[in-house]
Amino acid sequence: MSSPTVTDLIREVGEDNTSGAAELARKGAEVLVLLANQTAAPDAPQFLSELLTTGKALIQAQPSMAPLFNLVNAVLSSLETMQDADQARRAVKAAAQAFVAELNGRVERIALEALSLLSDGSTVLTHSRSSTVLRALLLAKERGRPFSVVCTESRPMYEGREVARELAQAGIETTLVVDSAVGHFVGQANTVMVGADSVSTRGLVNKMGTYGLALAAKARRVPFYALCGTEKFLPPDYPYLEIERKDPREVWEHAPEGITVLNYYFDVTPLAYVSGLVTERGILLRPQVEEMLRQPRVHELLL
Amino acid sequence: MSSPTVTDLIREVGEDNTSGAAELARKGAEVLVLLANQTAAPDAPQFLSELLTTGKALIQAQPSMAPLFNLVNAVLSSLETMQDADQARRAVKAAAQAFVAELNGRVERIALEALSLLSDGSTVLTHSRSSTVLRALLLAKERGRPFSVVCTESRPMYEGREVARELAQAGIETTLVVDSAVGHFVGQANTVMVGADSVSTRGLVNKMGTYGLALAAKARRVPFYALCGTEKFLPPDYPYLEIERKDPREVWEHAPEGITVLNYYFDVTPLAYVSGLVTERGILLRPQVEEMLRQPRVHELLL
Repeated sequence: MSSPTVTDLIREVGEDNTSGAAELARKGAEVLVLLANQTAAPDAPQFLSELLTTGKALIQAQPSMAPLFNLVNAVLSSLETMQDADQARRAVKAAAQAFVAELNGRVERIALEALSLLSDGSTVLTHSRSSTVLRALLLAKERGRPFSVVCTESRPMYEGREVARELAQAGIETTLVVDSAVGHFVGQANTVMVGADSVSTRGLVNKMGTYGLALAAKARRVPFYALCGTEKFLPPDYPYLEIERKDPREVWEHAPEGITVLNYYFDVTPLAYVSGLVTERGILLRPQVEEMLRQPRVHELLL
Repeated sequence: MSSPTVTDLIREVGEDNTSGAAELARKGAEVLVLLANQTAAPDAPQFLSELLTTGKALIQAQPSMAPLFNLVNAVLSSLETMQDADQARRAVKAAAQAFVAELNGRVERIALEALSLLSDGSTVLTHSRSSTVLRALLLAKERGRPFSVVCTESRPMYEGREVARELAQAGIETTLVVDSAVGHFVGQANTVMVGADSVSTRGLVNKMGTYGLALAAKARRVPFYALCGTEKFLPPDYPYLEIERKDPREVWEHAPEGITVLNYYFDVTPLAYVSGLVTERGILLRPQVEEMLRQPRVHELLL
């Protein structure tokens, strides 16, 4: 059996609908390291050109996965003014591996930061399943903090049930409600915590329903935080973002003729409804987030 | 087989979880007519006292069903200063029958009023299943008006699927989405139309999710109308209103131990989020509704 090619690996990334962002970034890094190992480019500019082609293909394989974009961006930026091909290859490998290594510890750092949002006896409302939110809540429980959680069931895939199960197993007081109940229940919560698929000046992209939840939180004056590392940040003019239409049968298996069933996994919450982001750099309040997002460091070739 | 007693009929009303408000009001009227036919009260004050006991029992059999309250209120008010028992019995029967007769034509009048909210080519978003909203949309189609509808699936019972089915069968362009998608889709709608179980100064009681939808409509500046006759109006100090907790298995049939599944059918939308009500008296804008609700004509014995 021959080793996989760069093209094979990119196809694999594109077809991977189960891995989280960190795992996909790890696979993306493998692609770039493989390219660096296999390239026959005679000089750095030629290698940069190959890297750009491969990097763009990688981003487009999963255009909503912000960490892939940021990985490619970090790797391209590591080359800067290099001329020597070998030096460039080493720099790319180092940058890709550093990006992945950095991601690995990030969830735990964010979970630690989130502890300060949980006052004793408070109730957290969460929507869908964010592994970062889940880790933050489990860490708080490990630290002996008393709190309770309200989870939405998260149609159509019910991943909120999985969250409820994991929290309850850890001994956390857990309530589950239908998705439409957030308007009612957010008023009984002290904090909303969700994850994020990406963040840009256009808003927070996260599981469908996040926007409605954020509106309700604002109306009830409940702070709304997204737990997400800066690898989820995207520049204002990121050209690849699209919200895919998913299989309608996930919503209604045998819908009668003549009814259009629309199934989108994500919506976009304007930053005006976000109190702040819990990142590996600490809790960033909205004005700070907006400033960072307006001034991204993006390699010129990527835009 | 002996004829049913007043007590039997009240028990039937209490156990009836399938009939709509109009049908329950009809059954309620039967109770009061039966009482008027059977009473041995020697004078009007004695009969009034019996009527009050029976009326309160009827209201408490289905305390969220505003038309029962308004039926009893109308019937009590019909007695006023009467002294003669026979005259009082005739007045009660007439008032009960008039109340029901009036209700029968009301849905059609509301549907006609709602036509003015539908401009050509517009999109209506609705939530759950209101027979009045459904009738209004079907009437608009019968009148040849071009419009489309977005329905929510309406968990946990999915009655939104039934709405979608009925609309599509009538040839109306119909889209169905998960409940959490209202935040996203309300921005594409021109009008929100929902029903109501009751309205008071405390807000609009309707299917769980109505409040979140109203918040989203306000944020996206989409007019939010409830279609409901004034038989749904309740006084500010209505003492019987409660939002029942329903069977959690409707939400999650086999929820693991340790997870509290909360299933409420209704939430309360503050009137601040309601653009207006479409009633049998025309489209009433919020300030008008608030004034009517603040000054209800309630028989003194009922409060």
